[in-house]
Formats: sequence, C-alpha cells, structure tokens
Amino acid sequence: MRTSHFLLATLKETPADAELVSHQLMLRAGMIRKLASGIYNWLPLGFRVLKNVERIVREEMDKTGAQEFLMPSIQPAELWEETARWEKYGNELLKITDRHEHRFCYGPTHEEVITDLARREIKSYKQLPMTLYQIQTKFRDEIRPRFGVMRGREFLMKDAYSFNLTEESLKEDYQIMYDAYTRIFTRCGLKFRAVAATTGSIGGNISHEFQALAEAGEDVILYSDSGDYAANIEIAEQNGLKEGDKSPDGKGILKTARGIEVGQVFQLGKKYSDAMNATVLDEKGQTVTMFMGCYGVGISRTVAAVIEQHHDEHGIIWPDELAPFQISIIPMAMHKSTRVKLASESLYKQLTEQGFSVLFEDRNERAGTLFSDHDLIGIPHRIIIGERNLDQGKIEYKNRAAKESQLIDNDQVMAFLKESVTIPK
Amino acid sequence: MRTSHFLLATLKETPADAELVSHQLMLRAGMIRKLASGIYNWLPLGFRVLKNVERIVREEMDKTGAQEFLMPSIQPAELWEETARWEKYGNELLKITDRHEHRFCYGPTHEEVITDLARREIKSYKQLPMTLYQIQTKFRDEIRPRFGVMRGREFLMKDAYSFNLTEESLKEDYQIMYDAYTRIFTRCGLKFRAVAATTGSIGGNISHEFQALAEAGEDVILYSDSGDYAANIEIAEQNGLKEGDKSPDGKGILKTARGIEVGQVFQLGKKYSDAMNATVLDEKGQTVTMFMGCYGVGISRTVAAVIEQHHDEHGIIWPDELAPFQISIIPMAMHKSTRVKLASESLYKQLTEQGFSVLFEDRNERAGTLFSDHDLIGIPHRIIIGERNLDQGKIEYKNRAAKESQLIDNDQVMAFLKESVTIPK
Repeated sequence: MRTSHFLLATLKETPADAELVSHQLMLRAGMIRKLASGIYNWLPLGFRVLKNVERIVREEMDKTGAQEFLMPSIQPAELWEETARWEKYGNELLKITDRHEHRFCYGPTHEEVITDLARREIKSYKQLPMTLYQIQTKFRDEIRPRFGVMRGREFLMKDAYSFNLTEESLKEDYQIMYDAYTRIFTRCGLKFRAVAATTGSIGGNISHEFQALAEAGEDVILYSDSGDYAANIEIAEQNGLKEGDKSPDGKGILKTARGIEVGQVFQLGKKYSDAMNATVLDEKGQTVTMFMGCYGVGISRTVAAVIEQHHDEHGIIWPDELAPFQISIIPMAMHKSTRVKLASESLYKQLTEQGFSVLFEDRNERAGTLFSDHDLIGIPHRIIIGERNLDQGKIEYKNRAAKESQLIDNDQVMAFLKESVTIPK
Repeated sequence: MRTSHFLLATLKETPADAELVSHQLMLRAGMIRKLASGIYNWLPLGFRVLKNVERIVREEMDKTGAQEFLMPSIQPAELWEETARWEKYGNELLKITDRHEHRFCYGPTHEEVITDLARREIKSYKQLPMTLYQIQTKFRDEIRPRFGVMRGREFLMKDAYSFNLTEESLKEDYQIMYDAYTRIFTRCGLKFRAVAATTGSIGGNISHEFQALAEAGEDVILYSDSGDYAANIEIAEQNGLKEGDKSPDGKGILKTARGIEVGQVFQLGKKYSDAMNATVLDEKGQTVTMFMGCYGVGISRTVAAVIEQHHDEHGIIWPDELAPFQISIIPMAMHKSTRVKLASESLYKQLTEQGFSVLFEDRNERAGTLFSDHDLIGIPHRIIIGERNLDQGKIEYKNRAAKESQLIDNDQVMAFLKESVTIPK
C-alpha cells in the first residue's frame, strides 16, 4: 500500500477530550474517528489491526472445534422477557420499536437468542458437547461512554456458547476456552492475569475475567506475588481479602493491580436453559436440561489494551501479529533521486511478492514528518533507503522498539527480514 | 468437520411459509433459521457459504486498490438531516432513540457517514482518487419482509464509496467497480446481466444493477437477445421501449427476463458532497467539491440467488468456490466395519492436511438418510467408502451435479480430487 493513496490521517496535536494514552494514540495515528458519543469509525489503519485481532480469535476458536455462525443484532423483546432481562438488564439495553410497533433491542449479548436456537435445533445428547461462536457488532447504551473504544457503545465482540449434557462436560469446555483465551491474549502480546470474577448481569456460578494489566484499567485485581491466586476486587473483598494479606493458597502475598477486562468466561449452568426450557433427550430417552457456558472477547477493546501496553513517547509499537503493516519502506528524497526510487520500488515489489504487508512511503514530505508519522503508527519494521547508504551497498533497518538503527547489506535484506518478521497467515 | 458434532439441522418437510426455492432449501438444508420477521440466524452451514461470498467480494475489492474500513451501524439523525433523507428515506429507516433521547438510525446505507468522514479527512487532490469499502450488517425496515434472506430486514452488505476530483475520474472508478462486480458474480457462478437502472433513494445520475437471472426474481429487465443493451423495466419504459422492439443499439430484438438484484453501482456525482460540503483543495489551491460513486453488493442475497440458479429436485448444488465444504466423505456402515472406518478416517486426515475442507459423515444413520442429507446441503464432491469397493481397491466418487457416480482406484483418489476440486484460498 502506498501512503499517497492510503487514508493516513495522522494528527500532530493530541485531541483535548482524550484522556487515555490508547485513546490519544488511536486518534493521532488515524486508527479511529468519533461519529457520536461512544460510536467510532475504524479507518483503514485501525481496521487492519482490528482484523488481525479477529483473525487470531477465529484461529484459536476454530482450533477448539467451536463452530462459527452468526446471530442477528436485532433481537425480539419476547425472548428477553422469558429470562426477565428485558427489565433487569437496565438502561444499557438499547430498545427499539419497528414500523409495526414490535419491540426489539440491539443485542448487547446473545444468551437469549442462542438458547432459543439451541432449544429448537439441538435435540439429542449425541450432538453434545457443542460450542458455537460468532464475531459480531454489539451495542451497550453506556450512560457515560469514555476512553474511545475502551468503553464504547458500539463494539466488536466474539461471543461463544457451549452446550453440555453434564456439569463435568461444561467444566471441560470451560477449561478449553480458558486455555484458548490464554493463547489469544498471549499472541496479542498482552501481559494479563485471569482472575476469579463476579458474574454480573450475565449470571451463572463460576467466572473468570482476563485482565490486561494497565495503570489505565478501570478494574482492580488482587493477586499473589508468587502464586496462582488472582481475583477481581469484588470477589476478593467478598472473601475478606485485602492487599498485604497472605494469599489464600498459602503462596505469596496479595498485591493489587489495575486491569482492562479484555475477556470473560462464565459457567452459566442452567440459568438460561432452565428459564427457556432448552432440553435434549439423554441416553435413556429422558428429557434433561442442558448446561451452558458463555465466553466473550472484547475485540475492539483488545486493540486499545495492546496500545496501553505497547507504546512510547513517539507513538504505538505494534507486536508483529497485530501490526497494520509489518514493514514500512521510507525512501529518502525519492522525488529527487531516481536511484533511490528504483531501489525502493524494487524492494517494495519483492517484499510484497514474498507475502509481507508493506506500507510504501511515497509522499513528497520532509523526512522528519515521515519519520514521526511512522513512529506514531507503530509499524514494527522499517527500511530506510537513501543515496549515501546505496553507495555502500547498504540499506538502513530500524526496529520500532529499538533505539538505534542498523545497516544491512543490500543483498541480505530479504534474508534478514524473513528472519525478523513474523508473517501472520 | 464431523457431522456428529456439526450443527446439521436438515429438515425433511418443506416449511409451509417459504415460497421461493432458495428460501425452502436454505431452511431445509439448515443454513438459516428465522428469529423474527425478516431477521435470520445463519447456522454454521449457511455461515460458511456467506463467508465464501464475503471472501470473494473482499479479494476482488482489494484487487482494485479499495481500502477496507468499518463505519458504525448506528448513525446520528443530524447527518441524515443534512441530506434531508431523515424524512425522505421513509419508513424503511429504523429510527432509534438512545437513553439520553438522542436520535439515531440503524444504517440501511452509509452515504451520510462516509461523506462526513471524507469532508473531515480528505483534504487534498493528492489523496484522490480514493475508494473505501466495508462489509457490514445493515437494516432496512421492509414493510413486508419475504423470501427469507432475499428480502430480509437485517442483512450483510458490501458498500464501497469512491471520491474523485473530476467526473472523468469518477467514470474510471465506476468502470473499475463494474468490472470487479463482473468478476465477483462470475466467481459466484451466477448467470447475470448488468442493466441500466434508476437511482431510487440513493440518487445520482448513472447507475447499473447486476441482476442474477431467475424466474423468482422480483425485478424485470429488458435486454437485447444478441447485443449488449440491457435495462431494468423502469428505464426501458422511460425510453419508450418494450418487449419485441428492436434494440436501441441496432443489435437484436428486446426480450424480457426476471432478475434478482445482487449488486448496484451509482455515479452519485455531487449529490452528497454538495449537500454536506465535502471539498478538497485542487492543484491551484482552490476549494472544489468532490465527485462520488457508491457501489453495493448484497452478500446475503447473493447466497439465495446462487441457490435459485444452482439446485435440482434433491437440493442445492454448490459451485466449488461457495461450497460450505468442498468434499464429503460418506462411509457405508462404518459403525460395523473397522476396515471402512480406517479407510475413511485415513482419507479424511489426508484430505484435510492437503487443505481441502471436508465434511466427514460419522453419524450412525441409514445410508438413505445420509445420501439425501448430502444431496440437500449440496457439497459438490462426494466420496463413498464401502466394503465391496474396498475389496476391489476402489472408492466411489460422485459429483453433486452428475447423475452417475464413478469408481476410482484407491491410490488415484488424491490426484483425482486435486484435479477436480477448486480450493478457495
């Protein structure tokens, strides 16, 4: 992709209303633009990162054997009345009336719709366990949307639902999802803790949140400094624990940290299947109510959480797997030097053919402007091509995370990049 | 994927309220399930086809240099008031009021939002031409939703928007999109005609619809039986043309046909950019209003249109590129024969490793049930493995579109399938 025709919308100034670093950088890098309170356009640069998170989530879901499908965003009120959540869910539920005066909501979550589908389509224990997932736009009418896509109203989410014959089978699927989430957030380059959590408006018995550790996080967690214990503050306080206490598992001392909830898994038990009568026939031909689990990843929010952990004073520093482009090529004074232009265009062509995604900087701007733009948008691998280095048969390479650049022999560039860059599938 | 744990939801009976063949088959094959009037769940089988159409559309859009991004589904009323469409668009616009009494709609199309974004972010002629596209769920509150996803309320659409400095440049981008649409619908296996069209509530000067030819189509087109002329009936009648007339280009006689509109392209001119003041600076530093084009593909509807053209009395016949799985393996009496089981499992493993997508029939059901299920869901390539043929070192192959099956030497199966099956990327 050439920058001249790419919708690169970098800003020099930090927008006044953005408090969090991630929100500031997403606006300044031209990843997102606000349309209305809590509602954002994802510009091409941001969209490429969003798609990378989506791809990682999809790959890890598919590995578990979960089946992708798609439920509607618009859901009838009647289903929500079956579980009493039409009233209980509160004002975050965006209620809608259609032209025929039928009542709907814009789905903030899909337990009712999936349970309705399951009671109609899953009939026998032979089909269990079964896990279905979707990647879909959701809407929660937050009273005070803030922090950009961190607490937006319209957002992209992956939600999965497992159906199980027994509680034991539910616990197995829960562990499979827990492990998949661990792989997802690890691949996203996040430092995170899975913490015991309350179940809130979703309900159920057992739940864990996946908390990306960040000072900017809205959640507080209590964790053992040398053991496995970790819980969100509500759970910890329910159990009479506070910072400085010994960990309940006997290992280490409890400390607090702030976190951004990027995922949550729930053992719902029979909350929805009981309320909505979702049953199957078991081996003896008897009607039994299914156990359910549900498992969410905040895809939009994960993008912001990664930025909170991966940036410096100049901008974003993308992990390879999430980067909107893996490599940027910045030719120096290309519009004056045919040699630089030819060498740059040739490398661009080669790298693209090798399957790298490359941002080619062909704007006729000052070098300083170009470098600060590329620092800001955080492409991890940068190639700089200039007359002087070409004289020596060299090109300059700079890793976004490194302080210094290095010179590489022209004929070693491809081998070097193949070694250095992780190519997402 | 094994059928035992796949949400295969085939129906023996044709649902009473489904008129069109595509609607009947999508329900019977378990591709979709109705949630509310005009609102459907896409079950895993249907979702895989939907994703294949989406993949083809994305590949062809990317080839044109268009940039993918994502706009919100929820749009503020104020933008629609700038173009006067808040009132003019009529009752198909699903209007929503949020908890703070702010007015929004669920986007049925995105001209207002993209024009607002463009006026804020595109500043110079140097950035033009630029084409942006998204693949997104839209909502039109049809007064009488019908024919399943053919005229649903919530649906998946690709919408692209081009921004141009001159009308000439707009015409170039229009042709690029026209050509891309031709490739898209050709790859989807559709017989279609691009016809001159009226511009309706979208507006603009010049427009073409891409009409998949089908008796079940709601649209009527007039076309030359031996020339290039083709128009929808409104345009033809405006020009005083009717069936049996000579074609206006002098080539052939005009005939009528019915069509399903699967795509439409528009030269919007300055309709939106004038109303919303979307300007750039030109080479002389003067403010000029941009020209715009917009280009839509009905992704959900395309799935239904393909079924209208590709089915027989037993079910769907998927073109390879759209098939939910390329190959199905049906072992005969696998639950009694270890040999059949071993041979089938081994082939399943090999084919999967080679990158084919395979549906492995491991349910313990009568052969007749299995065959009619696989006929119904329309997997194009079928392998049947049974004791008798194994004795001869053969397996049976049947193409869904062929009447007869054929025997293939066991050691030739892989080569045969590599030859016969188109693997989508």
